[in-house]
Amino acid sequence: MLEAAIDLLRGYGLSGAGINDVVRESAAPKGSVYHFFPGGKLQIAGEALAVYAGRVEAFIDEALSGRRSNPERVRALFDAFAQRVENTSCRRSCAVGTVSLDLGDDAEAFRPLLRGALDSWARVIAHHVDLGEAKRTRSFAGLVLTAIEGAYVRARAEGTGQAFREAGAWLAQLVQ
Amino acid sequence: MLEAAIDLLRGYGLSGAGINDVVRESAAPKGSVYHFFPGGKLQIAGEALAVYAGRVEAFIDEALSGRRSNPERVRALFDAFAQRVENTSCRRSCAVGTVSLDLGDDAEAFRPLLRGALDSWARVIAHHVDLGEAKRTRSFAGLVLTAIEGAYVRARAEGTGQAFREAGAWLAQLVQ
Repeated sequence: MLEAAIDLLRGYGLSGAGINDVVRESAAPKGSVYHFFPGGKLQIAGEALAVYAGRVEAFIDEALSGRRSNPERVRALFDAFAQRVENTSCRRSCAVGTVSLDLGDDAEAFRPLLRGALDSWARVIAHHVDLGEAKRTRSFAGLVLTAIEGAYVRARAEGTGQAFREAGAWLAQLVQ
Repeated sequence: MLEAAIDLLRGYGLSGAGINDVVRESAAPKGSVYHFFPGGKLQIAGEALAVYAGRVEAFIDEALSGRRSNPERVRALFDAFAQRVENTSCRRSCAVGTVSLDLGDDAEAFRPLLRGALDSWARVIAHHVDLGEAKRTRSFAGLVLTAIEGAYVRARAEGTGQAFREAGAWLAQLVQ
């Protein structure tokens, strides 16, 4: 069920990951969803986001490892994301992006989860792409996340991961 | 009705801008929606996106006008977007972003509209921020759009437009 929820969140955000959608996609009996997730949609989405955030953190860590220079690391990270989105035919993106652009009155309930995911990713980027000064390093990591989230928007609109490669080439220039 | 549709799209993407939502938000009789938009949701969203795209093009043009240098233009553009998102308490973002991250089987129907909007914005950015060589200028304009779309994601997740200002400061360095 959690896998179905993650997939639906990555595709359509909160509005696509209701109880009925998760039941349909996971082929689980409806009663079992309420059994495992008595907190309903907020609980499902919250747990799905937490699992998803951990996976993306590992993905970023892997993409940034074993490179010699900061520009190489930045380019490798964006190339990895380009491949990742193209592997889904540009139909799935970042669950933090889809959920963020779908927040309504539930914004305050979800923001800590979303901020937590972004923070964990920024930390792993800052760990690998060290610009010498902590504040500058953290700010650059923030820019990288901004570009990743925006490249996902363009990838889904354009049907190609090219926006990731474009951003990687430019952002690598900033850390040369 | 078009204004209600634009507002709903900016808030929640396609899934939030169904016929019933537009009827509720615009307080128009349901029959009149079908009268003006016999093509249903695709037609409403399409027309709303077209009007929205024109407005954003004018907004970008205005933000980039009357500045002396490329770095000043870039910073002014991102500052203007930071203000724009904060004016909505970070509850509304770019309709191209929200719709892109919400595409399903309707992707091919919507992609030309989304690509068209992004292209028109890239052209106005490239017109104002000329880096001397056409291909490089166009690529930088693409990066700016990537950063704007991503900063909207972060703004809605974080409840502040700070990601726009951060991106503006970094991207200005690329055109110094």
